[in-house]
Amino acid sequence: MSINNHERSSSRYGSKIADATVGRLSRYYRTLKHLERQETETVSSEELARRNNVTSAQVRKDFSFFGAFGRRGLGYNVKALKQQLGKILGLDQEWHLALVGVGNIGHALLNFSQFQEHNFHFTLLLDSDPSKIGSKIDGMEVKNLDNLDAEVKNGHVDIAVIAVPVEAAQKVTDALVGAGVKAIFNFAPISLFVPPDVTVRNENMVIEIEHLSFVLAQQ
Amino acid sequence: MSINNHERSSSRYGSKIADATVGRLSRYYRTLKHLERQETETVSSEELARRNNVTSAQVRKDFSFFGAFGRRGLGYNVKALKQQLGKILGLDQEWHLALVGVGNIGHALLNFSQFQEHNFHFTLLLDSDPSKIGSKIDGMEVKNLDNLDAEVKNGHVDIAVIAVPVEAAQKVTDALVGAGVKAIFNFAPISLFVPPDVTVRNENMVIEIEHLSFVLAQQ
Repeated sequence: MSINNHERSSSRYGSKIADATVGRLSRYYRTLKHLERQETETVSSEELARRNNVTSAQVRKDFSFFGAFGRRGLGYNVKALKQQLGKILGLDQEWHLALVGVGNIGHALLNFSQFQEHNFHFTLLLDSDPSKIGSKIDGMEVKNLDNLDAEVKNGHVDIAVIAVPVEAAQKVTDALVGAGVKAIFNFAPISLFVPPDVTVRNENMVIEIEHLSFVLAQQ
Repeated sequence: MSINNHERSSSRYGSKIADATVGRLSRYYRTLKHLERQETETVSSEELARRNNVTSAQVRKDFSFFGAFGRRGLGYNVKALKQQLGKILGLDQEWHLALVGVGNIGHALLNFSQFQEHNFHFTLLLDSDPSKIGSKIDGMEVKNLDNLDAEVKNGHVDIAVIAVPVEAAQKVTDALVGAGVKAIFNFAPISLFVPPDVTVRNENMVIEIEHLSFVLAQQ
């Protein structure tokens, strides 16, 4: 077991892809979606670069990992490029999310419409609080955390979202890994230990906001 | 005006500090807080490294930007180091947050107790929805977004949190910058244009979760 804070993700595209590349693909995808809504038909690497604060060489390099997408001088077809990036990012599929921990953060995530819009759907809610177990949220019943293994296996969970208190996070992680979950989105402020075939992404809003207080404190 | 996605933050410590360094300081701070709760008195750079998935050389290098914190072979005093890092990160001060946009994300952030615990306090709420303006949340009145300039100036806002729809985000940013705000925590999925003396941190949970769908789609 090792702490798994990937800086590179395995891919079918030969060499490993840097996490930063994947993040930029997501951002290009967002730009293309915006351009599609505006009925723009083609876009240059320069324009994609400008809108994402990178160089056009970077854009072309990012795309080169996945094969050539455009023809020099003609730019990219917005619709086709969006579709290709969406496929690479797995956005052409529906993903089932399990929410572990139905507290403040959990509720916020359930109400976070952008997940739904991007094909990420909560299909399983788990909590250990007897007053929550059996209650319904958006028509979904909150299930008993004690039955995690069976519920996760029955629910065909793709991604588990950990929104439990920090003290419970590693134990929940171990149970999720045991139930076969390969992707974890962690909101607990702790580094999780997982086997190498499990990917963890950490969300930590406190660490983000502390960048701002750091900068302000220097002034 | 340029898109401001800092990769380095200005500091009083001579050279510019990489954003990744600041993020690691936040993580070390968290580890130290945990150790302090456990009444651990000293910690080695090796232990700090192990708990944060970095090398001990990295830990020592990160601290070297800010002066020497420990003595070789003796490890660091947990309490003293936590205090020093807290000061560097600005966590010894109270910060006033303005929330712009009191929708789903906004509500979730107001309920996010970790901000309070780390001295980040919402002191101003702004929205443009007439049905929200004048209503109270946690004893705070939602103010009219049209009066942003006066409200921000009166409220001594340190950090503005942008939780408005993507279409409104740049306009709100311009108004905040005009009102003198130097630090912005942006939840709208768009790159904001700000002057060089304003720092923006972007929070994008969709981009994070797309890392996971990317990895799953490769399997």
